[in-house]
Amino acid sequence: MNAAFPAEALGRAVAATRGLVDGLFNTLREATPGHPGITRPPYGEGEEFAHRLLADRARELGLEVRQDAALNTYVTLPGRDRAARALMTGSHLDSVPQGGNFDGAAGVVAGLAALVAIREAVGVPPQDLTVMAIRAEESVWFQVSYIGSRSAFGILPEGVLDSAKRIDSGRSLAEHMAELGADVDALRRGQRYLDPARIGGFVELHIEQAPSLLEAGVPLGIATAVPGNFRYPDITISGEQAHVGLPRRFRHDAALAGADFATALDRIWADHEGRGIAMAATIGRFHTDAAIHGMTSVPGRFLMSLDVRAYDAAVLAALEKSVLALVPGIEAARGVRFDLGARASAPVGPAAPAIQAALGRHADAGGIAWQKLGSPASHDAATFAALEVPMGMIFVRNRNGSHNPDEAMEVDDLMHGIAVLAAWMADAP
Amino acid sequence: MNAAFPAEALGRAVAATRGLVDGLFNTLREATPGHPGITRPPYGEGEEFAHRLLADRARELGLEVRQDAALNTYVTLPGRDRAARALMTGSHLDSVPQGGNFDGAAGVVAGLAALVAIREAVGVPPQDLTVMAIRAEESVWFQVSYIGSRSAFGILPEGVLDSAKRIDSGRSLAEHMAELGADVDALRRGQRYLDPARIGGFVELHIEQAPSLLEAGVPLGIATAVPGNFRYPDITISGEQAHVGLPRRFRHDAALAGADFATALDRIWADHEGRGIAMAATIGRFHTDAAIHGMTSVPGRFLMSLDVRAYDAAVLAALEKSVLALVPGIEAARGVRFDLGARASAPVGPAAPAIQAALGRHADAGGIAWQKLGSPASHDAATFAALEVPMGMIFVRNRNGSHNPDEAMEVDDLMHGIAVLAAWMADAP
Repeated sequence: MNAAFPAEALGRAVAATRGLVDGLFNTLREATPGHPGITRPPYGEGEEFAHRLLADRARELGLEVRQDAALNTYVTLPGRDRAARALMTGSHLDSVPQGGNFDGAAGVVAGLAALVAIREAVGVPPQDLTVMAIRAEESVWFQVSYIGSRSAFGILPEGVLDSAKRIDSGRSLAEHMAELGADVDALRRGQRYLDPARIGGFVELHIEQAPSLLEAGVPLGIATAVPGNFRYPDITISGEQAHVGLPRRFRHDAALAGADFATALDRIWADHEGRGIAMAATIGRFHTDAAIHGMTSVPGRFLMSLDVRAYDAAVLAALEKSVLALVPGIEAARGVRFDLGARASAPVGPAAPAIQAALGRHADAGGIAWQKLGSPASHDAATFAALEVPMGMIFVRNRNGSHNPDEAMEVDDLMHGIAVLAAWMADAP
Repeated sequence: MNAAFPAEALGRAVAATRGLVDGLFNTLREATPGHPGITRPPYGEGEEFAHRLLADRARELGLEVRQDAALNTYVTLPGRDRAARALMTGSHLDSVPQGGNFDGAAGVVAGLAALVAIREAVGVPPQDLTVMAIRAEESVWFQVSYIGSRSAFGILPEGVLDSAKRIDSGRSLAEHMAELGADVDALRRGQRYLDPARIGGFVELHIEQAPSLLEAGVPLGIATAVPGNFRYPDITISGEQAHVGLPRRFRHDAALAGADFATALDRIWADHEGRGIAMAATIGRFHTDAAIHGMTSVPGRFLMSLDVRAYDAAVLAALEKSVLALVPGIEAARGVRFDLGARASAPVGPAAPAIQAALGRHADAGGIAWQKLGSPASHDAATFAALEVPMGMIFVRNRNGSHNPDEAMEVDDLMHGIAVLAAWMADAP
């Protein structure tokens, strides 16, 4: 830490942003209800409200506001040397359907509060400090990861703009973007707004999406890595729709094949858990075909999604091999056929050791308890890591997980996170 | 067999109904499409069309047509002694969504052809011969068994008229009935149209819903019994909706609990199959909650139906005990809760030995190959058996099962069934 670093003044300035923080969360909660919880669909009403709210508040506070072709919003406290590499923070403003108020938004609110506190306590920083409010992070909607952050860097996968359909509307990503005024043609050309070489570092603050910090009794976690994943968003199992009276030997029950797959996958995870190897496997959609299913029919068609994640590239590759190896045995035993559909993946995103160390030092200096943590979830920070921008993450203790209406982060804990984030932004070399 | 029984003349008269039979199936197929297959919702458009078609054709043929309070349609060839106990046949005219053209309708078409052939070959029969076209047999729609046949006897379970909702419309049975002109008030009073004591016997012809006859290479099966069942149409498993990154030890995955249940149930069945004990277990609806499921959420809610059937009351009772005993272990292992919802059941319906014997004799006399068969499915014939009306069933060989668009009964096989049915109706004591 810089000897002249005004740690105490910055701490007081962070504490003074409490009203701003509470006010933003309250407005978001009231304006983007999900019945229950909150719903902010990407390139939809709730997300758009949140971006406008951020932009309006930032302008009132005298900060710079810009948007890129994909409508990510950037709030900047200009530095003395505007050509110097910027320090960035941020997170996403969209949510899952019927999610909570903090998943994503906490990181944007924290960034805004950090800029305000730094200006108050430090004045003009050496380089630009920027909060990025990212679009479309929740992949449940378009079944594509990191749409906003990858668009900013011009690396959205080919074809996704048209092939990805939002699950609620059935309309394409391009249509939803265009409706809000995005420059879809620029995105098609792969135009980039952010240049990895021009970013000194990116730290994302996010609520923890598991109860590890709660269990440990510490308010903050500092990430070691964001997991990589492989995904099969649309697996279809085809068997034979048949009558409820059909004897077992004649059946080709697609739902039972799905059940076999799910329980076998869970055994693979239990085995890894037993050996202390971190991973997660989730079948979030798991269902007979609503158009034809019924109490007196043997299911002939079964649909499911698959998301498997781990912190080590070799573990992830071995897992994919094991999971795919389940299929032929089930196909043979049940007389069904698996169509795995499209595959998507994201590499493991390691946190930069220097940023991990700096965040830990600032927390220690502020007397804030913390622990190292493998991020339970995927985050846009992984996009920055993949492009070799030095990346870090701060997790805030949170009750009841996320992606549900009962998320319960304490704003007191968040204020600790903002203090560490602001110290990093004000003090980073 | 009566020595004077005009077997040959009746055989020729049955063969002469081939055009009537083909014509009825063609009209039904064209008028009640299911995209794919056919769809005739009970107390809905397709079923109503089929009843009107039957009534119109029967009147053209000079037969008596009546309807009861529940709009079951009765076509009668009047006997010499109209006070004598009638002989009845029939089946249902509704279908599952995207079902086939023969499940149900084959038995009604066969009955009409039998009456026409008997009048031609035998003239006026000793007693009334009646074909009953039954409403609402397919329990997938209202999740209630035998609505039409139980209404005819005034034994529809209390409350069902209002509590049962059709799955596609969400509207009650009473509303759907009233819309077509049924006398719902009479049904509420338990008014009966049929008196079990006034019926000499009931034989239902139906396509076989399994490939046993196909495998054996015989066109006809003669039923030994209709299975009894227990059903839990609306089981809900409640866990905790959570984020895809949640470690395994914190999860309460409702879908995995469903998968555990399904695979354990299948093991129970495999064990019975190994011991040669006939039963069937089907989970026809098996799904995460479409309102909230997604690739990146751990399922907090899982929904399923359960239908278990067997031919022996003791086997059925033991099965229900075993199946329910699965629940506490899964609840404990997964940290979830099962709500079994409403329970429904139907007793085993044994076929009358005298009718089994008579049908076999007539098949033998006609040189038609047949075998004994436990009905794979539930049928309205079970309602008659439960009320101690002597009951029998004739199954017709059928490819590809039923409850799907690919049902493929050969009309040649059906004609054999009609011959046996007509002989029984013309010759029964």
